[in-house]
Amino acid sequence: IASNFFGPQKNTNVRVSLPAVCFVWQIAMIVLFGVFVRYDKESDAHWVELKKTENLTDLDNEFYFRYPSFQDVHVMIFVGFGFLMTFLKRYSFSAVGFNFLIAAFGLQWALLMQGWFHHFDYSTGKIYIGIESMINADFCCAGSLIAYGAILGKVSPVQLMVVTLFGVTLFAVEEFIILDLFHCRDAGGAMVIHCFGGYYGLAISWVLYRPNLHRSKRLNGSVYQSDLFAMIGTLFLWMFWPSFNSAIANHGEGQHRTAMNTYIALASSVLTTVAISSMSKKGGKLDMVHIQNATLAGGVAMGTAAELMITPYGSLIVGFCIGIISTFGYLYITPFLEERFKLQDTCGIHNLHAVPGMLGGFTGAIVAATASESVYSKEGLIATFDFTGKFENRSPGTQGGFQAAGVCVAMAFGLVGGAIVGFILKFPIWGDAADDNCFDDEAYWELPEEEETIPPVLEYNNHMTQQKHRETPETSFSVVES
Amino acid sequence: IASNFFGPQKNTNVRVSLPAVCFVWQIAMIVLFGVFVRYDKESDAHWVELKKTENLTDLDNEFYFRYPSFQDVHVMIFVGFGFLMTFLKRYSFSAVGFNFLIAAFGLQWALLMQGWFHHFDYSTGKIYIGIESMINADFCCAGSLIAYGAILGKVSPVQLMVVTLFGVTLFAVEEFIILDLFHCRDAGGAMVIHCFGGYYGLAISWVLYRPNLHRSKRLNGSVYQSDLFAMIGTLFLWMFWPSFNSAIANHGEGQHRTAMNTYIALASSVLTTVAISSMSKKGGKLDMVHIQNATLAGGVAMGTAAELMITPYGSLIVGFCIGIISTFGYLYITPFLEERFKLQDTCGIHNLHAVPGMLGGFTGAIVAATASESVYSKEGLIATFDFTGKFENRSPGTQGGFQAAGVCVAMAFGLVGGAIVGFILKFPIWGDAADDNCFDDEAYWELPEEEETIPPVLEYNNHMTQQKHRETPETSFSVVES
Amino acid sequence: IASNFFGPQKNTNVRVSLPAVCFVWQIAMIVLFGVFVRYDKESDAHWVELKKTENLTDLDNEFYFRYPSFQDVHVMIFVGFGFLMTFLKRYSFSAVGFNFLIAAFGLQWALLMQGWFHHFDYSTGKIYIGIESMINADFCCAGSLIAYGAILGKVSPVQLMVVTLFGVTLFAVEEFIILDLFHCRDAGGAMVIHCFGGYYGLAISWVLYRPNLHRSKRLNGSVYQSDLFAMIGTLFLWMFWPSFNSAIANHGEGQHRTAMNTYIALASSVLTTVAISSMSKKGGKLDMVHIQNATLAGGVAMGTAAELMITPYGSLIVGFCIGIISTFGYLYITPFLEERFKLQDTCGIHNLHAVPGMLGGFTGAIVAATASESVYSKEGLIATFDFTGKFENRSPGTQGGFQAAGVCVAMAFGLVGGAIVGFILKFPIWGDAADDNCFDDEAYWELPEEEETIPPVLEYNNHMTQQKHRETPETSFSVVES
Repeated sequence: IASNFFGPQKNTNVRVSLPAVCFVWQIAMIVLFGVFVRYDKESDAHWVELKKTENLTDLDNEFYFRYPSFQDVHVMIFVGFGFLMTFLKRYSFSAVGFNFLIAAFGLQWALLMQGWFHHFDYSTGKIYIGIESMINADFCCAGSLIAYGAILGKVSPVQLMVVTLFGVTLFAVEEFIILDLFHCRDAGGAMVIHCFGGYYGLAISWVLYRPNLHRSKRLNGSVYQSDLFAMIGTLFLWMFWPSFNSAIANHGEGQHRTAMNTYIALASSVLTTVAISSMSKKGGKLDMVHIQNATLAGGVAMGTAAELMITPYGSLIVGFCIGIISTFGYLYITPFLEERFKLQDTCGIHNLHAVPGMLGGFTGAIVAATASESVYSKEGLIATFDFTGKFENRSPGTQGGFQAAGVCVAMAFGLVGGAIVGFILKFPIWGDAADDNCFDDEAYWELPEEEETIPPVLEYNNHMTQQKHRETPETSFSVVES
Repeated sequence: IASNFFGPQKNTNVRVSLPAVCFVWQIAMIVLFGVFVRYDKESDAHWVELKKTENLTDLDNEFYFRYPSFQDVHVMIFVGFGFLMTFLKRYSFSAVGFNFLIAAFGLQWALLMQGWFHHFDYSTGKIYIGIESMINADFCCAGSLIAYGAILGKVSPVQLMVVTLFGVTLFAVEEFIILDLFHCRDAGGAMVIHCFGGYYGLAISWVLYRPNLHRSKRLNGSVYQSDLFAMIGTLFLWMFWPSFNSAIANHGEGQHRTAMNTYIALASSVLTTVAISSMSKKGGKLDMVHIQNATLAGGVAMGTAAELMITPYGSLIVGFCIGIISTFGYLYITPFLEERFKLQDTCGIHNLHAVPGMLGGFTGAIVAATASESVYSKEGLIATFDFTGKFENRSPGTQGGFQAAGVCVAMAFGLVGGAIVGFILKFPIWGDAADDNCFDDEAYWELPEEEETIPPVLEYNNHMTQQKHRETPETSFSVVES
Repeated sequence: IASNFFGPQKNTNVRVSLPAVCFVWQIAMIVLFGVFVRYDKESDAHWVELKKTENLTDLDNEFYFRYPSFQDVHVMIFVGFGFLMTFLKRYSFSAVGFNFLIAAFGLQWALLMQGWFHHFDYSTGKIYIGIESMINADFCCAGSLIAYGAILGKVSPVQLMVVTLFGVTLFAVEEFIILDLFHCRDAGGAMVIHCFGGYYGLAISWVLYRPNLHRSKRLNGSVYQSDLFAMIGTLFLWMFWPSFNSAIANHGEGQHRTAMNTYIALASSVLTTVAISSMSKKGGKLDMVHIQNATLAGGVAMGTAAELMITPYGSLIVGFCIGIISTFGYLYITPFLEERFKLQDTCGIHNLHAVPGMLGGFTGAIVAATASESVYSKEGLIATFDFTGKFENRSPGTQGGFQAAGVCVAMAFGLVGGAIVGFILKFPIWGDAADDNCFDDEAYWELPEEEETIPPVLEYNNHMTQQKHRETPETSFSVVES
């Protein structure tokens, strides 16, 4: 065993714990869904009668306003986040596979948690779900998937399930405070998703600091093909970010403007990312890490403001600045945090989610505070900020203040919640890998054998071949076992 | 030639047969389309007048109800099925390329076959097609693509064209019996697509049993990269399955509920797949075969019931059970079938399509039989099961019986049709590969040469390099030719 | 350095020029957007009031007619074009990365250029943008991305930015002439996008002819994995082409028919591509180059006619013919052009865009010229060709003439504009690679080191390993540097 040079290897056997967690939690979901979850009126067969009573047409069903956006968001969650993290040379199965697992669990738990907070009917004791619940459930998972980015390669799938269980729970609470109590606007979740998820992951990773992680250094990097797979993730995130931000925005002009602002800001952040990346390297060569990540910061930073009348050039400016900030983060802040603050952030979520999310939240606060009837029209202002009911008399200035307070709540939940979850994950029962065995699919996956596929004609030098293979990088992993 | 160790190689030359089949069938399509196929009223320029006469708006055009779902289904057919089958180490070109070929042919033939059965206007002698025809044509191809999964690596492209010609024909007939004569509901095709397609492929593969297939064993497996490519297929299938099941469901609440039920069931089957996969292996390691396939079984199993009021927790239960069943299938049933029944099923479609489709059909039968006016509302019940015209007085119980009968029809068509097609494919004229040459793109594709791309500075040791290369797995394929 | 065998290497350092171009152009975009660009009335918050005044519903917002198609087009531009060009063994980062960069720049410049020509309000001096502007901006980029295909591997990112700046500018002018002055129909851009973009790229490449390009021959080819990545691009282009052609077609039957015609034609071109490819090779083996490219020609060739009443069998015939023509082009015309006309066309855009675009334009002209009231209905004819205002009395025959003239304008703009841009790019200031260093990501990207990932247990033979690695293809690139 390779690791016997460093001492006894940690036990990564999850044969009991992983099935146990999956079964227990899935059965819990079935029971809780049985008790609480029902179709909302637009997905229930009674809608056929309701349609007649209320003189509706089929197209009034919320499904047609939201379903195309939902599918784009769904692609971002599973292909976008999943493949973005495949950049490591030998951790792609875990990147895409565990992302798949925890998102599939998280969305169920999110339907319940968000349901209790937002869609609970006290008269019947039920949660009623529909297409918007599905989008919000996907959003809710995103917080935990972002956190996965910081701890990628260093935790077991069981730990990830715990991260997701608490992540979704914390998300639902902070979202309730920010969106309901503070009455903030945050269509694309710069605050509730990215700022929260970013700091949640960073806090977990900080608690789980591994002083000897350099022992896995050989695997903490990309190869040519893995970088290309990661670009699939990057591009699907980048292309569908307008749908992400607009998926639950107001019908009509709300969704329209949100999508357009995001589209424009993302384009702008690509150019400044390329510029800074090129400036920072000998010969002006570009770094794939920047292209894969910082180009997306424009979407994060527009998460709150995209819904507002930030103007097209305002969107360009946001994208311009955040592309620079994010790329600088990858160049200087992430190494600095690792060295000085003992914070190991595998995917650099600090630069892609935490900081852009926080700045996006504050950008939204400023744009909200400066909103006026001349720009929005009287009814447009009411509709955009939902100044109705008990918020009828709120001024844009006050709204801006609450938006800013919302950012702080998101950060606080992320940092405190993440620290607590981190300590829970330190118990030596979760099956995480030893320091010299991180970033390696070998720990949790049956890897295909990179066997010689030598045709018979070459068998005469079979022995020689096997000898040589021990020394090629492709096969070194199976050699470790022997 | 490698195979001369085993005797004369079979002739995989398709230089005459493949172009001949493509040309003849494509010309036949042109002639038949010319005689029969016309735009339906919603895609004909006359609609501009009709809109005025009937006081319609642009949005009443069926296009806006179905097109986003159609595109998702289209992605599943070409990227989903295509890439799911790229998991073999040296058969990825054929997986994605022949999938492309036969789906492109199949959808044309399906437009005709389904048109004759469903959209034929006896007064004009024409078939009128629109967006729903396109979705149904894609669905119809899916049956044959599923069958491809069982015989992947063992047949020639010409044989696949034959499989598709008969597959689409059989599909159209069984679909007519099940949906029109029996008046079954099967929005996502658990019966007509998955159950039929699964048993069709298994029957073909059973007839084409190759006792010496072990001679290609070296190629019948995955490598790290090919498993990642397959995950692209898996995820696009998984994400878009809600669109697949809801694409032709009833407008409004029908599509809404179908998509949501499928979404929930799929999430559930991911967790039980992971649980069983982990339990079955030493150290609790996951097997990519399970993650790539059994996670999708939830979508198949909901093909019929998703449209009905199965309830959210009912969907979770279906996903829970089928994830377990499908993973068990990969672990135990497929090896058992191969050993005892001489059934070689490359992709394990028995576990992903045949059985989940059959069980999904019976699930639908039970849910239909237990339908009631209290759950659906009076009009909801009529709308959901289309109890109109000569089916006005059918009871839910009767409907359940017909649904169950439909499953049997689908199985029978698959098994009998597949057996017949299998015997047709046994004629030694189709250009299939010898037993020791299966699972190899080399037979049908000009493969890029894995030449040394050594820059000049290294030329001094060129001879040595070539010598060594003969022994590396990467280059062994070109060596075979020499 | 490898190239010292051929003489001094050209300077590919873009550390000053690339950031400078990105920053200057992005700042220019911000300033110009600030001066000119505003939300149109359907994306402005005032729409909430307008909706009441004009008695509209949310669904009347153009967003719901166009957004799903927009997202499909967006995927084609970034994933489709980007991954289609990853087929080269060591130029995938540049293919997908530079495609990303120039499309992100191009769409901003396109919003301005197309805005000035089509959406400029002289009373306010502003351009008003909405969802249709976003689709058109993506279309406008496509012209330059097509041109990238001809010069792939031979130019620097700075040169590509110049190609895009002029490409978008020329596009906007020719589009204005063809669509506004000539009043042509060209929903899918056979003329304005593909014919123009194709000849633009060919003219640039012709001017930039490299007589010693054979020095990079070792890198001008694919490997197994890179061909699979390219298939991702192919399939997303192929699947979403119906959305591309229908994205800005008339509401209702216009979009419906356009999507369906394109779907049918594409299916047909797959079969003839396969037929010709198989006929041309020993043993009937298929060539990935054909499958990746010529299968798409059906979509290009339907760019103009898909919107018209070409009939389903007419679409099949177009796909049938263009699949043959395009594959023949790859087999015979591209090599001929390179040998006789010194035209190096890396991706063969001559066969996929230039010729199919030109033929598609003429096909559209013929279909337009033969339009009649009996086929379209009176109002259908007016709506389809927009025979309103000053074009009220135009006959279909005249329309056909103008359509044919439009093709000539597109070609002329492409050829003349491309020649001029080519000469600009010949200045030795742009950082393009030397002839022996083309098709190599090394020039512009920090490539991951293909280091030995040897676990400690093997360190004893470390020296031996390094020795061997110098001779494996995988590592030869990093060796060049040493």
